[in-house]
Amino acid sequence: MRSVRIGLLDCGTVGGGVVRLIAENAAANAARVGAPVEIGPVLVRDPGKERVPELDRARLTTRPEDVIDAPDVDVVVEVMGGLSPTRGYVERAIELGKQVVTANKMLLAMHGPALVAAASARGVDLAFEASVGGGIPIVRVLRDSFASDVIEEVVGIVNGTSNYVLTRMLKDGLTFEAALADAQAKGYAEADPTLDVDGFDAAHKLSVLAMLAFGGYVHPDAIPTSGLRAIERADHEYAARFGYVIKSLAIGRVVGDRVDLRVHPTLVRRESTLASVVGVSNAVLLQGRALGPCLLTGRGAGDLPTAVSVVADVLDVARAKVSGQTGLLTKSLRTGQKPTLPIGDVVGRAYLRFSVYDRPGVLARITGALGDARVSIGELVQDGGGDADGSPVDVVMLTHAAREADLTRALAAIEAGADVARPPKMLRVLGER
Amino acid sequence: MRSVRIGLLDCGTVGGGVVRLIAENAAANAARVGAPVEIGPVLVRDPGKERVPELDRARLTTRPEDVIDAPDVDVVVEVMGGLSPTRGYVERAIELGKQVVTANKMLLAMHGPALVAAASARGVDLAFEASVGGGIPIVRVLRDSFASDVIEEVVGIVNGTSNYVLTRMLKDGLTFEAALADAQAKGYAEADPTLDVDGFDAAHKLSVLAMLAFGGYVHPDAIPTSGLRAIERADHEYAARFGYVIKSLAIGRVVGDRVDLRVHPTLVRRESTLASVVGVSNAVLLQGRALGPCLLTGRGAGDLPTAVSVVADVLDVARAKVSGQTGLLTKSLRTGQKPTLPIGDVVGRAYLRFSVYDRPGVLARITGALGDARVSIGELVQDGGGDADGSPVDVVMLTHAAREADLTRALAAIEAGADVARPPKMLRVLGER
Repeated sequence: MRSVRIGLLDCGTVGGGVVRLIAENAAANAARVGAPVEIGPVLVRDPGKERVPELDRARLTTRPEDVIDAPDVDVVVEVMGGLSPTRGYVERAIELGKQVVTANKMLLAMHGPALVAAASARGVDLAFEASVGGGIPIVRVLRDSFASDVIEEVVGIVNGTSNYVLTRMLKDGLTFEAALADAQAKGYAEADPTLDVDGFDAAHKLSVLAMLAFGGYVHPDAIPTSGLRAIERADHEYAARFGYVIKSLAIGRVVGDRVDLRVHPTLVRRESTLASVVGVSNAVLLQGRALGPCLLTGRGAGDLPTAVSVVADVLDVARAKVSGQTGLLTKSLRTGQKPTLPIGDVVGRAYLRFSVYDRPGVLARITGALGDARVSIGELVQDGGGDADGSPVDVVMLTHAAREADLTRALAAIEAGADVARPPKMLRVLGER
Repeated sequence: MRSVRIGLLDCGTVGGGVVRLIAENAAANAARVGAPVEIGPVLVRDPGKERVPELDRARLTTRPEDVIDAPDVDVVVEVMGGLSPTRGYVERAIELGKQVVTANKMLLAMHGPALVAAASARGVDLAFEASVGGGIPIVRVLRDSFASDVIEEVVGIVNGTSNYVLTRMLKDGLTFEAALADAQAKGYAEADPTLDVDGFDAAHKLSVLAMLAFGGYVHPDAIPTSGLRAIERADHEYAARFGYVIKSLAIGRVVGDRVDLRVHPTLVRRESTLASVVGVSNAVLLQGRALGPCLLTGRGAGDLPTAVSVVADVLDVARAKVSGQTGLLTKSLRTGQKPTLPIGDVVGRAYLRFSVYDRPGVLARITGALGDARVSIGELVQDGGGDADGSPVDVVMLTHAAREADLTRALAAIEAGADVARPPKMLRVLGER
């Protein structure tokens, strides 16, 4: 049987890992696919640069059409990232009937439905295990393992940089700025950390996860997203006093015929498994109707873990190619627009932190405003009441379950008072089952 | 296209779950498989018994040949358990060219190589996701997701009953007997708990995991296995003082060209993710050369989680059937005998607990015997030294890494002394990376 030929778009560290893993496991790959799998043309910017020794340099090209349009390329693997020119390359590969593997979460989050529709119409597969959770096989698990179940909830630590920053703040008492600088020094964070610490990367991944888990598409712009910049060391300390740690979570839930998707720092019970996921690790907790909870944890990024996920996809779509049954993986994806729950309708517990001047009646005013909005208080701590120098003191509480719109209204009323030194801080608490 | 027809061997709670999930997801299943999937003949013992409403009672039969030999059955699903007559049924189904799905870990652990060889020779698939870890998709992840990586280590909490017993002992201070009785009362443990609490069930699962992870077969009898009966509350308390919890683990590691497979109670760092896996939950921690660590956690048993895993397999092998490419999943399994590391050659830290009469020189004798065997002590606690009534006191220690044969020799020497009230207790400590 003729071999299955891979065309590779980019050959940086992930691409090099793909070349290496394909070469190292040639016999096992052939057994699994039903034909040998080989690396064909490889698009690079600089053909003179050093590459992994497994790569035949004669394969290198700087012309994308040598990869995408080559008639003997069966599978196009996109590991170049970004939206442009990547999107056009992927679209053209699909149009030409290639099987496509991509690691590009932003491309999927922004243009997933159109790409899936194109692949489905053309009868080819679009596989994207490496787009979420690096080395965690979450895409395959959602797509294949839990195919017959109804997923009700997905909660993920999907941005390793954010989790690293929070871990350093919590364990080593660093400020946000110091923890971020450390992440940058270690190469975990980009020079511009906006995508990571402001939650946008997590929102992209949540959009992809939601498509797989809930059978519908939500654009990242429609996902309420907040990052870590507002988290202070004191918040970690107060959270600990209530028995919680702060994690940046991507949360997706089915609520009736809508989905509730959010990315924000969240209080998580200290003894929970999610709380034990530290450093640059990622984790995704699924809740299936039949299956119950299932947690996957591992390296969220890194060249080799990502390459392992890309190659798993390559073997899948290569096998489909050999069997002549391409397109089935993609055809079962549902990408219709999914209606979302307005954030004001979200119900849950909240962590509230007020910075108040210690005047008579201030606590009564705060609790009164919360009570007026039907928000009831579960736990409260107030430290060092009666501050002699007139500087503000913290009043921190955990509410019982409350509608977010009610909370927002109460916080606006409280903020309007002269006894409040700065805007109240609100963090959500992960709902427990 | 004609539909893919399932023949079901047994229709208890797992089988009923399979029938229900196949019915509920008919459209999605057809999209994924490339043809409708339907339930054909169903073997039961008592056709009069009540079944799930989705089951057409006309399908019921008490004759296995109506299921296995039926020419229009494409996929035989075995959820009856046990070795006999199950083994014969599965062998015959393979012989007749059926795709086979089984949830039977004992069958695979005892006869896996022969069944895989038969399936491979006949060009059919033998899928067994539900055999290990109930609703945790560990088989698929090892087989598909990490196909291109080298798995160096597998550490699992794979017996929910044992984990439940240990959790109750640790959190609620129960004795082993009380915790086991509670597990039995809740339906988590069989009337005869031997398979669970003595580690044999875990050894079966480890045999299956090792075949997938390490590409070779080890019979469960060749896996050193010890259970929980020797664990006392005091052991949990001492472990906690060193910063550990006790978990019953199935451990598999590659050591040179051998594998080190063991099932035993193990000290695990309290802050590790494995330690946070409590109650009847299961977990499997993989260490891939390229991938790094990856942990999967979820319900280890239960009818519906198991049914979800069975149906995932059904869809896989049905798709292979429709595409005419059967046997590829099975062909990539390697089942040659794998040589094992003798337990005496295992190197690791150990927890040692001695019950001694508090006589002058006893501690010197113990530490001397350990030193003679080149076992060095990392931490030591001795409570209530100088017991007035002459009853023995505990001396507990954590050693540094030591060869197990050296430890055994030292413990034998120590046990021979008159100042030791009972045989020393030794528990292994999970190696940290």
